[in-house]
Amino acid sequence: MMRKLIITAALTGSLPTKEQNPNVPITPDEIAQDALACYNAGAAVVHIHARNAEGKNCHDTAVFQEIHDKIKALAPELIVQLSTGGRAGMSFESRRGCLFVNPEMASLSTGSVNFPTSVYENSPTLITQLAEMMHERHIMPEIEVFDTSMVAPAVELKKKGLIDGPLYLNFVMGMRNVQPANIGQLSHLLTMIPDDALWSISGVGANQVTTMLLGLAAGGNVRVGLEDNLYQTKGVPASNVSLVERVARIAKDVGREIASPAEAREILGL
Amino acid sequence: MMRKLIITAALTGSLPTKEQNPNVPITPDEIAQDALACYNAGAAVVHIHARNAEGKNCHDTAVFQEIHDKIKALAPELIVQLSTGGRAGMSFESRRGCLFVNPEMASLSTGSVNFPTSVYENSPTLITQLAEMMHERHIMPEIEVFDTSMVAPAVELKKKGLIDGPLYLNFVMGMRNVQPANIGQLSHLLTMIPDDALWSISGVGANQVTTMLLGLAAGGNVRVGLEDNLYQTKGVPASNVSLVERVARIAKDVGREIASPAEAREILGL
Repeated sequence: MMRKLIITAALTGSLPTKEQNPNVPITPDEIAQDALACYNAGAAVVHIHARNAEGKNCHDTAVFQEIHDKIKALAPELIVQLSTGGRAGMSFESRRGCLFVNPEMASLSTGSVNFPTSVYENSPTLITQLAEMMHERHIMPEIEVFDTSMVAPAVELKKKGLIDGPLYLNFVMGMRNVQPANIGQLSHLLTMIPDDALWSISGVGANQVTTMLLGLAAGGNVRVGLEDNLYQTKGVPASNVSLVERVARIAKDVGREIASPAEAREILGL
Repeated sequence: MMRKLIITAALTGSLPTKEQNPNVPITPDEIAQDALACYNAGAAVVHIHARNAEGKNCHDTAVFQEIHDKIKALAPELIVQLSTGGRAGMSFESRRGCLFVNPEMASLSTGSVNFPTSVYENSPTLITQLAEMMHERHIMPEIEVFDTSMVAPAVELKKKGLIDGPLYLNFVMGMRNVQPANIGQLSHLLTMIPDDALWSISGVGANQVTTMLLGLAAGGNVRVGLEDNLYQTKGVPASNVSLVERVARIAKDVGREIASPAEAREILGL
């Protein structure tokens, strides 16, 4: 029997703007309100990026703390996952900001890859530093896998004892210069991961539909949200809630049960 | 019928030292002598890195020119492929050095990935700059593919008209933090490349045996050499010639014909 479906809502990201889609939550209050709405729609986890007062991506602990606390005030049960990624250079000091908040989860990329116009640098040293800090603080990593080479270093972190719970991987697909969003890629990745690893899948742009359906078809978990995709269907602006609602609706339609945050905690060993 | 086998000898690389294996050619004279010996053993292409007077990896045009000219003096027929890769940072200025030599071929990585202890940075901008310079100078790129995400950007260069001949990809496998060296990975990569693309395969360390055999089995071309692997078998130091001889010997044993440099030129459209 398939495990219950963990829906993660990636609310804001580093880049989306209200000019692109007015539904993108930017301020801590907007993010917390949207998190609550996504929780009510079926999300067990929210994946959070922080923006400064000008709306630009930042890694300030204070902003992450404010967002975290506001979400917890509105939806105490929700699992908050803060992002160590985004376009923040590669220094440990510039990337660890969110970890001081001690969220239940944080994202961790286990390799480097090109983004559309830049190098997304996660050096082997940085990866170890972030993993060690997460481990010390009992923050569960969600490993962001942008290509096949990022699987083995994740497995290695688990073997080294830097991940206490299950290995939880999110396959990020279909952005320019990262791995493609298709059956072949997912099928291959699934041959590479340990039998006891858990996985989720997310796709960028219109690929979010593909990855959502592949995730449901293959018994994985699904991440959706405006961070990765601004449209519900071609030309129709989405909201985080509308994207979560769609996954929940399809899951119900096919008899896949949706994990509450409490159930997600059990699955993820939190 | 399978195409004739193009054997590429990767003689020196960025890192190997004579302390690790006394057969590693370091000076331009040593590299040229080794190139000649590999040519006599069946190599059609030599893949060349340059070292400075201290034996450290460098991208100086003058050193590449000296190596290039010395190889051409000893083995005029051999195809010389100079490396734009290696551990040289990411500025275009620091990476294009070898292209001023106008070699027949040069290597080009179409993405970023982690090396064992560093980030191998090839930004989208750098890739375009190197590809444009190669195109202007009629230098054929060998695309170095360290993971699946590097395939699409290579196909894109061809579509943009920056590669005149066939798309020629070398799959680099089995180094820590890059794609694994196994059947599953190769099989998946082969589903991703255009039907008319040509490919080669290379493996790092003991994986060089695996990739050589996979390349022969699947009808691809093979790169071997001390750049990637210092041992013939466990604990037995190799030489570039002994590694080329082994591929040639096995190819003959299984009836796969070996391409001369002239035949390789025809296959590669040089």
